[in-house]
Amino acid sequence: MHKRSIEVCFTPKTFSDIITKENFVVVIVDVLRATSAMCAAFQNGVKQIIPVAKPEDARKYKERGFLVAAERDGQKLDFADFGNSPFNFVTESVKGKVIVYSTTNGTQAIEMAKSSDGVVIGSFLNLSALVKWLVAQEKNVVVLCAGWKNKFNLEDSVFAGALTEALLVSGKFNTQCDSAQAAMDLWDLAKVDLMKYIEKASHKHRLKKMHLDDSIGLCLTTDVTNAVPVLKGEFIENINYKS
Amino acid sequence: MHKRSIEVCFTPKTFSDIITKENFVVVIVDVLRATSAMCAAFQNGVKQIIPVAKPEDARKYKERGFLVAAERDGQKLDFADFGNSPFNFVTESVKGKVIVYSTTNGTQAIEMAKSSDGVVIGSFLNLSALVKWLVAQEKNVVVLCAGWKNKFNLEDSVFAGALTEALLVSGKFNTQCDSAQAAMDLWDLAKVDLMKYIEKASHKHRLKKMHLDDSIGLCLTTDVTNAVPVLKGEFIENINYKS
Repeated sequence: MHKRSIEVCFTPKTFSDIITKENFVVVIVDVLRATSAMCAAFQNGVKQIIPVAKPEDARKYKERGFLVAAERDGQKLDFADFGNSPFNFVTESVKGKVIVYSTTNGTQAIEMAKSSDGVVIGSFLNLSALVKWLVAQEKNVVVLCAGWKNKFNLEDSVFAGALTEALLVSGKFNTQCDSAQAAMDLWDLAKVDLMKYIEKASHKHRLKKMHLDDSIGLCLTTDVTNAVPVLKGEFIENINYKS
Repeated sequence: MHKRSIEVCFTPKTFSDIITKENFVVVIVDVLRATSAMCAAFQNGVKQIIPVAKPEDARKYKERGFLVAAERDGQKLDFADFGNSPFNFVTESVKGKVIVYSTTNGTQAIEMAKSSDGVVIGSFLNLSALVKWLVAQEKNVVVLCAGWKNKFNLEDSVFAGALTEALLVSGKFNTQCDSAQAAMDLWDLAKVDLMKYIEKASHKHRLKKMHLDDSIGLCLTTDVTNAVPVLKGEFIENINYKS
């Protein structure tokens, strides 16, 4: 049986050099914290998310009355309703709502992946649901780590390893990608105590300095939600959404 | 005491995003096989290497009577005297000579790094000599993995980990770079049986298919030479060269 391929991009910078050329879904990964926060938001009943790359576009949506989540370098922007902590999106505030979302790295990765055959949001919070959905698609998988300002980061890479490993276990995939191999090795080291492993990550310390590290535990927790947020046109929608 | 920094770029694509902004030496790494071959060449008495990025420039040098090493995708180019196997540069052919060198990934990484405060060639073959030299410089270190066509590769990344670890042991350096952390973790897994670990690397299989894998054992052997090849203007010279 022909197996589908898995390829990992450690940073958006290398996305234009992927070998996978056709029939692929891109999994956007920004563990600390954009894609984790999006998964939490859908878990709490958000109806749709509109990802926008530029803060000025997010501001325009705010002026039109939308709920807006926007941060740069981890800090909530002044005009926004929310930053990108997964704790921001409590059910009372967001249930049934549309949220506009702009973050340092995450939404720009989404923008980049738009021309592929599918874009889905991945984080530890929805890992099993994501795997199940990806297995059910008849498509190759490209994992696009948002990284930090175009640089490799540990947390997204470790997640890429967890996802690759789970997809290989399904028996439907294989990989000839060195990044995927390395990611699985890092995941293998990290999974014993993920919180301790992520101590090494520079962004962990960046968030701590800004007193924004309270949500890291949640961001590293597996299977909090069955949400599978996929891009449909300009919107991200949870395919398991129930109003 | 102020410690110097170490930063790792897994691919040339991310070199423009390095955080290290001043007073740094770039270590060029292309383990399979350009930088390994260069170290072997200097060990065998080569006087100078002229790195050129484009094959057409290498051909012009050939027409002018130079010895030329040139390959693309692992294969020796028709007009060249050598490919990029470290076994090519035997003492009888190269001692005291100037060699022009153009390879798929390695020389392009050199080209990119030219504007830094120093460029040095790194491989397992000269690891200890390289570390000693880097420790003696009063400079930060950026490790630039040549990768494979702008993609991450395992063999260069594992070497970056070995080098980072050795530099940290000196006590003169520290690192806040996630890539350096990941590289050290990969090195830690790989070093138990490096040859076996590199079985996972896609380029290993690429070389095997072309029957060019005979030199992999040598490329993964530590401290074959005391050569420290550094870029001086348009030439690479071994600072330990003895005529």
